[in-house]
Amino acid sequence: MGYNSHFCPYFHRAVELIGQRWSGAILREMLAGATRFTEIRHAIPDISDRMLAERLKGLEAYELVERRVFAETPVRVEYHLTDRGRALGPVFAALGDWANKYGCGESEETDPNAA
Amino acid sequence: MGYNSHFCPYFHRAVELIGQRWSGAILREMLAGATRFTEIRHAIPDISDRMLAERLKGLEAYELVERRVFAETPVRVEYHLTDRGRALGPVFAALGDWANKYGCGESEETDPNAA
Repeated sequence: MGYNSHFCPYFHRAVELIGQRWSGAILREMLAGATRFTEIRHAIPDISDRMLAERLKGLEAYELVERRVFAETPVRVEYHLTDRGRALGPVFAALGDWANKYGCGESEETDPNAA
Repeated sequence: MGYNSHFCPYFHRAVELIGQRWSGAILREMLAGATRFTEIRHAIPDISDRMLAERLKGLEAYELVERRVFAETPVRVEYHLTDRGRALGPVFAALGDWANKYGCGESEETDPNAA
């Protein structure tokens, strides 16, 4: 559909969920293939274990992420995107292109943390 | 580029800015052509004048929106997307497609506000 001016609460909610601190970064790592807690943890500087666990729970509640527990010793836990979560791929691809053009990929002057 | 697992602070910041309460909705209205304060105001249920003014200032500071003042009587003020802001079009189009598929456009059961 592209965008139109009909206000859609679901759209609105989706945007805010993705934009919630860390959620976007987590989804991005998972779209890139990360499935393990530590894998995601290490890819995102500064996120704490507690915060990552909390955000993953939120994404699970929103049916974007599915938690799978494997009865091994030690127990193995993996996080997988649902179809709905994976369907966010084009959104993140478009965001990546945008950030690449206007931020990362250019000089460090445009790094927002440099200001 | 699509997404990759290289952590990009600019990407991260962009996602959070877009996801900030109301900012996404404002950008969406502006991408659909809105340029006047009242026009944006009326398209977004529940946003207050104060909040809209604050968010527009934030988007201006981030160089996504430009405020133009026309020396008429009464003074006319318009808000326009910068190139950088307009370049978010594909992101919002992808988000709209996603929301359409998984929310608005389906039954009301999937309306997040119905839960």
